[in-house]
Amino acid sequence: MIVNVSPRGSMDQLSQLEVDRLKQNSTSELYQLYRSCSLAVLASGLQSDNAESLFGQFEDFNINVLRRERGIKIELINPPEAAFVDGKIIVGIQEHLFAVLRDIVYLSDRYDNLKNINLTNPSHITNVVFDILRNGRSMPLEDPSIVVCWGGHSINDTEFHYTQDVGYELGLREMNICTGCGPGAMEGPMKGAAIGHAKQRISKARYIGLTEPSIIAAEPPNQIVNELVILPDIEKRLEAFVRLGHGIVIFPGGAGTAEELLYLLGILLNKENQGIPFPLVLTGPKESADYFLRIDEFIAATLGEEAQSKYEIIIDDPVRVARIMSHGMDIVKDHRKTSGDSFQYNWSLKIEPDFQLPFDPTHEMMGNLNLHFQADKAELAANLRRAFSGIVAGNVKMETIKNVVEYGPFELNGDKTMMTLMDKLLKAFVKQQRMKLPGSKYVPCYKINT
Amino acid sequence: MIVNVSPRGSMDQLSQLEVDRLKQNSTSELYQLYRSCSLAVLASGLQSDNAESLFGQFEDFNINVLRRERGIKIELINPPEAAFVDGKIIVGIQEHLFAVLRDIVYLSDRYDNLKNINLTNPSHITNVVFDILRNGRSMPLEDPSIVVCWGGHSINDTEFHYTQDVGYELGLREMNICTGCGPGAMEGPMKGAAIGHAKQRISKARYIGLTEPSIIAAEPPNQIVNELVILPDIEKRLEAFVRLGHGIVIFPGGAGTAEELLYLLGILLNKENQGIPFPLVLTGPKESADYFLRIDEFIAATLGEEAQSKYEIIIDDPVRVARIMSHGMDIVKDHRKTSGDSFQYNWSLKIEPDFQLPFDPTHEMMGNLNLHFQADKAELAANLRRAFSGIVAGNVKMETIKNVVEYGPFELNGDKTMMTLMDKLLKAFVKQQRMKLPGSKYVPCYKINT
Amino acid sequence: MIVNVSPRGSMDQLSQLEVDRLKQNSTSELYQLYRSCSLAVLASGLQSDNAESLFGQFEDFNINVLRRERGIKIELINPPEAAFVDGKIIVGIQEHLFAVLRDIVYLSDRYDNLKNINLTNPSHITNVVFDILRNGRSMPLEDPSIVVCWGGHSINDTEFHYTQDVGYELGLREMNICTGCGPGAMEGPMKGAAIGHAKQRISKARYIGLTEPSIIAAEPPNQIVNELVILPDIEKRLEAFVRLGHGIVIFPGGAGTAEELLYLLGILLNKENQGIPFPLVLTGPKESADYFLRIDEFIAATLGEEAQSKYEIIIDDPVRVARIMSHGMDIVKDHRKTSGDSFQYNWSLKIEPDFQLPFDPTHEMMGNLNLHFQADKAELAANLRRAFSGIVAGNVKMETIKNVVEYGPFELNGDKTMMTLMDKLLKAFVKQQRMKLPGSKYVPCYKINT
Amino acid sequence: MIVNVSPRGSMDQLSQLEVDRLKQNSTSELYQLYRSCSLAVLASGLQSDNAESLFGQFEDFNINVLRRERGIKIELINPPEAAFVDGKIIVGIQEHLFAVLRDIVYLSDRYDNLKNINLTNPSHITNVVFDILRNGRSMPLEDPSIVVCWGGHSINDTEFHYTQDVGYELGLREMNICTGCGPGAMEGPMKGAAIGHAKQRISKARYIGLTEPSIIAAEPPNQIVNELVILPDIEKRLEAFVRLGHGIVIFPGGAGTAEELLYLLGILLNKENQGIPFPLVLTGPKESADYFLRIDEFIAATLGEEAQSKYEIIIDDPVRVARIMSHGMDIVKDHRKTSGDSFQYNWSLKIEPDFQLPFDPTHEMMGNLNLHFQADKAELAANLRRAFSGIVAGNVKMETIKNVVEYGPFELNGDKTMMTLMDKLLKAFVKQQRMKLPGSKYVPCYKINT
Repeated sequence: MIVNVSPRGSMDQLSQLEVDRLKQNSTSELYQLYRSCSLAVLASGLQSDNAESLFGQFEDFNINVLRRERGIKIELINPPEAAFVDGKIIVGIQEHLFAVLRDIVYLSDRYDNLKNINLTNPSHITNVVFDILRNGRSMPLEDPSIVVCWGGHSINDTEFHYTQDVGYELGLREMNICTGCGPGAMEGPMKGAAIGHAKQRISKARYIGLTEPSIIAAEPPNQIVNELVILPDIEKRLEAFVRLGHGIVIFPGGAGTAEELLYLLGILLNKENQGIPFPLVLTGPKESADYFLRIDEFIAATLGEEAQSKYEIIIDDPVRVARIMSHGMDIVKDHRKTSGDSFQYNWSLKIEPDFQLPFDPTHEMMGNLNLHFQADKAELAANLRRAFSGIVAGNVKMETIKNVVEYGPFELNGDKTMMTLMDKLLKAFVKQQRMKLPGSKYVPCYKINT
Repeated sequence: MIVNVSPRGSMDQLSQLEVDRLKQNSTSELYQLYRSCSLAVLASGLQSDNAESLFGQFEDFNINVLRRERGIKIELINPPEAAFVDGKIIVGIQEHLFAVLRDIVYLSDRYDNLKNINLTNPSHITNVVFDILRNGRSMPLEDPSIVVCWGGHSINDTEFHYTQDVGYELGLREMNICTGCGPGAMEGPMKGAAIGHAKQRISKARYIGLTEPSIIAAEPPNQIVNELVILPDIEKRLEAFVRLGHGIVIFPGGAGTAEELLYLLGILLNKENQGIPFPLVLTGPKESADYFLRIDEFIAATLGEEAQSKYEIIIDDPVRVARIMSHGMDIVKDHRKTSGDSFQYNWSLKIEPDFQLPFDPTHEMMGNLNLHFQADKAELAANLRRAFSGIVAGNVKMETIKNVVEYGPFELNGDKTMMTLMDKLLKAFVKQQRMKLPGSKYVPCYKINT
Repeated sequence: MIVNVSPRGSMDQLSQLEVDRLKQNSTSELYQLYRSCSLAVLASGLQSDNAESLFGQFEDFNINVLRRERGIKIELINPPEAAFVDGKIIVGIQEHLFAVLRDIVYLSDRYDNLKNINLTNPSHITNVVFDILRNGRSMPLEDPSIVVCWGGHSINDTEFHYTQDVGYELGLREMNICTGCGPGAMEGPMKGAAIGHAKQRISKARYIGLTEPSIIAAEPPNQIVNELVILPDIEKRLEAFVRLGHGIVIFPGGAGTAEELLYLLGILLNKENQGIPFPLVLTGPKESADYFLRIDEFIAATLGEEAQSKYEIIIDDPVRVARIMSHGMDIVKDHRKTSGDSFQYNWSLKIEPDFQLPFDPTHEMMGNLNLHFQADKAELAANLRRAFSGIVAGNVKMETIKNVVEYGPFELNGDKTMMTLMDKLLKAFVKQQRMKLPGSKYVPCYKINT
Repeated sequence: MIVNVSPRGSMDQLSQLEVDRLKQNSTSELYQLYRSCSLAVLASGLQSDNAESLFGQFEDFNINVLRRERGIKIELINPPEAAFVDGKIIVGIQEHLFAVLRDIVYLSDRYDNLKNINLTNPSHITNVVFDILRNGRSMPLEDPSIVVCWGGHSINDTEFHYTQDVGYELGLREMNICTGCGPGAMEGPMKGAAIGHAKQRISKARYIGLTEPSIIAAEPPNQIVNELVILPDIEKRLEAFVRLGHGIVIFPGGAGTAEELLYLLGILLNKENQGIPFPLVLTGPKESADYFLRIDEFIAATLGEEAQSKYEIIIDDPVRVARIMSHGMDIVKDHRKTSGDSFQYNWSLKIEPDFQLPFDPTHEMMGNLNLHFQADKAELAANLRRAFSGIVAGNVKMETIKNVVEYGPFELNGDKTMMTLMDKLLKAFVKQQRMKLPGSKYVPCYKINT
């Protein structure tokens, strides 16, 4: 089956050089990257968080960019049926296809080769993230209104409805939603907000999805996302979340959610960020109260009280969550005004190289992580973040999964008490089916040496 | 508490004469009508289908229209809190307030006195309905796309989710939704469609709500409705549904839903309407299969096979419902093109005075209804429709409720078999809590003499 | 030649009754009215101010309203070629055709019969004018910005360029233009403003044209007009000007311009209007200085100093004119705010029946006008206004022209000094070719008995 | 005087790095370039084509880019008053200021240093031009509609009105205008088209101005231009004209117009371009008939009949010009469809390095130009183009003017007959005041050695 798709949204004209660069070519890394991101977008209707099985299913899928008299077209060969309704591509998916094209072209063009983006100058990294977001048109001149929602892609029905309720109350209060753009806690708040926005007649509501090439297949963008941006790697994606968002709500989730929380706490614990307001709420339905208790305990035991003071845990009260965020937007606005910082991008937030430089979760890197109690809580947060990041990669990223299959699970070493705490937390995630979508049996990709 | 509301949507300028006519005045019928429709709109967040208790709760509510330098303002005195989010009126409600104002002004202005609209010329009635819809801007030049969804305001969770699923599939296929604008089966399809429309990036989706003054308080418009029109009485509202809609989906419901189905079948059984395509589906989740079995039996026994041939019953298959409607839109479009009839208003549908003239459900009128088997199935449908209409009035319309309290339940007389069938059907409605929202005990407003 | 035109702008759906009422029918007055207004709009590209010759030229022109599946269409039979560019109708004309349809339908529908609108209740008249303007969507919620430009349809090139320059400066200052919608001083300011608006990137600029059935053929709307409204008669059109406009600029003109100035001065001289700000400038290029000198002398001699104090004469300084208007908008805004009067419609301006009731310029009425000096300057202004109004009718209105042909010129009687002044003024108009477009020899339709 | 200007149009967010690069710094070439382009835009109301005197007049002008919480602001220190109306900046100028910023940032960012863009790969140059135009949003997906209007910045009133008339007819036929964005023949067609577009209710009409840093001060953009793009040098600007435009109209002009005509003929004479349709009309009022006679003679004598066959000369017939262009749009559209070439950018037009590589008009380069009759007409056209290009530079570009002052006029050498023809043509330009705006005495910057 061959389908031609017309441009929609961001990118409708390409130069001859750009088209040439994307030519179908099994050995070109850029083409492979482009093909797999596009496939992930097309397959977003299929419930799966297993990139490998997804790609296995669509081995005969191919994609070409064609220049035509009325701008470019994308030619899809054997695309997943789930992308179509009665033979017509879903417009949200169409838009995402062209967002993928835009970001791949932009990154390749600007930085020559994705693999080589490993800038070590923090200011340059921050400018690169800004640049990519701006190119994706994710920075209209608005007052602070973006609530980042983090949480698991695999959550139960009660939790899903709760994320919808919170989204609804945020939408009623005219806030916009930004997530990692997959299913579960990344879709629920958007669905809820869509109803809230409809009741408030907000026709230009923003549903921002930030992803990166190695995660997009495992967490394919839901089609409510109307601003999809692909960042080059997980660290730049995390930086995009905290500089673009004006407040963050964390729902129940697994290792990825823990990674995100640790990343953020590590930054907020930085002395230079003390005066910067950053509304942060952990919330879930009453059935999930226990989940947050454990997280809170883990934070208390590892990063201590100061870290705990950075967030508020709210159980079963969507209106309160929304009010805190709404009030937080005002505080953030005042602070940015006073400091002259941009409403659109939190330039003044200090992010250390520890949190900015890409972490490659090899067995060696994982085994050598320094997981001991220490005075510098931010540094500890950075290392814990890396540990969880590696586990996420072992769960969902194709390459890491292959390594784990070949070399066995990662081994994590460290202080005995800390290792025990971590083990307990991860076991709870496994038991609550937060690591992978229900249906598959979860085989841990890690081993905690206590 | 006094709140001033600025115009939004349809009506932002009034003449001095128009404002004078709406002046707060306890003895003016027009003011009372205006006040109660506005209150219904403001109270739409409260779950209640009891107009009397609603009005009892807000006896100190008042409303004034003020002329200001920047157009009119509406002054609300002691409005229901449910209309506000953190002190700001919900924009959907604000829009509805001005739609009420528009329609009350228009009707009063054009027809002098609402009470006197009792035109007996069928063509005039049809023109009046057109006129009101056009004044409400409900007739953009579009291809056929309006699916009317009928069904109960009091349905269970499974049914509600099912109506959402159907709405979602309709929305994905770019159809618009028109309902009676209350809760339950009138809200679910709109909620679902909103998500489908979001995924298809349809920013001008239409959620049309058609209501009338005596029902609006019992079925207050949900705020997704972005085109609210108030017709003068139930018969004109029904005519608006069948001339504006291009297809109809009927979900489980109570007496009101039965009234609607009988009304439509009565019209479709008219010989002059034989060639006119009118997609009609009765649908529900598998748990509601039995409900439709009973309805179908009742139709078979009373109106016969020809009536049955006008609809299709689909159990638990939202995609199929949406595909039938989507295909139906094409058929309707072709037919209108061939016949030169308007895409926006089904002028050629023949509606007999039996279905057009207002029926006032007094005890006498109800007792005298001719409920016997007869050759003219359309006439029988008209009378059955009136019987159910009276029961709806006895359930939810303030004035009729008072009469029932004073004079006892309506008595319905007729052929014994038919009476038994009706009794059985109504008892099922009662048992399934379809007559009133759960929580209150239902006391029948009718007595079937078998 | 038969051309079908699709709806654009205001009116795209008609009911069966409405279409029936407009059916082509040589004896129906409504059809004749509709036909001649439509013809005037279509012929607007032809330079002519002679309605009779225009209609003579297009005797085989006919027009029909057709109902089609996608809304109505207008069928034109043998329309003037000037309405088309390479076979396609000019969109501005298309819009005007549907504005004509809208206003004719509305007036006939609402007031049954145009001829019968002769309301004598001043408040009702004011409400009727409001009603017609609102129906024509001429009242968006904006700050005061409408400058009415009056002046001759027959002006020379220097004057025309000057009106463009003034329009340009008004447009640069973000003001909108309202005129009588013909050529000359009614077109120039719009053309100039269009350039000013383009430089200020004002995409929703308003070019309002107010006309009436008996003048539209003589002063057909130029196509820059994007809001065309047809008022029922000259008095309602004048009232529309002064209630809709926030300031007035008067360019050189003939009898019509004198009529307008006298109308406005008569109203502003009313004691009750003393506190109401009304920016009024008389302006022209230096070559026209003499023209204003004469006007000013005439006003001084008849209405006196107080009347003179109501306007400012500015020669050859478009920037200053625009600044006075721009400043005047602020003053008007403040005053409306303080008094709570609408920004869109000057309700508080008192207009006496003398200025509101239609004046029918028969030979008898003209002969009996009381043209003597008197204490009540407003009353004198009313009578002088009527005298000039009659002369305009004798110049350009078909019916009056016929009367003049049959019964000879009007005779005007009055105080000898006043008659001499008037004669002198009118002779100047004739000499400067302000009465009729150059090319035809002007034969006076009046005789001044001194 | 210090004025802060908010963003409008293309660019409202800059990164820290980008702002740093533009910091006010008298020794930074980039800042100087940015300052002078901005000053040219601000001074566009002043009638002057002398960059040096312009810059001399505003020596104390400075400009800063400031990052603020609501996006960037531009701070203007001592800007020309002509940019303001009653103290507020004209919105068109505001837009141009941000277009300048956008292009300077983009070029500096992408190509590091403007001076270094001297790519010699023709395909790369063509891609660069595309890239800059796309970044300026000058490529919406529309059918062919862009008419490039070339002609002098210094033309007389009759000619100016004629360019307006042609623009009006083009606008009526829904074509868009692209010019070099200065006064005279670059402004007239836009002014005329604005009226035509207004009558056709085209609200998104495009008025494209293409300029380059060394010419912008001499031909500052008129404010009707709503898409301003700054190309890096004259050759890329010319390439942008012929690839972006779908047809070209040439009005009377001086050396610059001759340069443009020779450039285009040189390309159209290329064998590889034979099948490509390119509507080309030379036109003016009857008073300018002689001008075109001379041009035509010059072309006949130098490039021959084939070159003459590429254009049509039309005297005093704006409607015919517009019809040829309108018809030409259809032909271009068909051809692009057949060949699959983009509607937005004429990729298939072959442009030889002779026409693409920047020509630096030093005295040596000018003196060595090969101006002899030869078989390869395209090559001769290239050299003649360079000769006229050098004369334009000597007339209006600051640096070249300085060289001429220092070293005396350029000397042009070549075939005697050809030199005589050229001399005659240039003398006519001088006599008709086409070289510089009237008011200054023209001192030739060249000497023709015959």
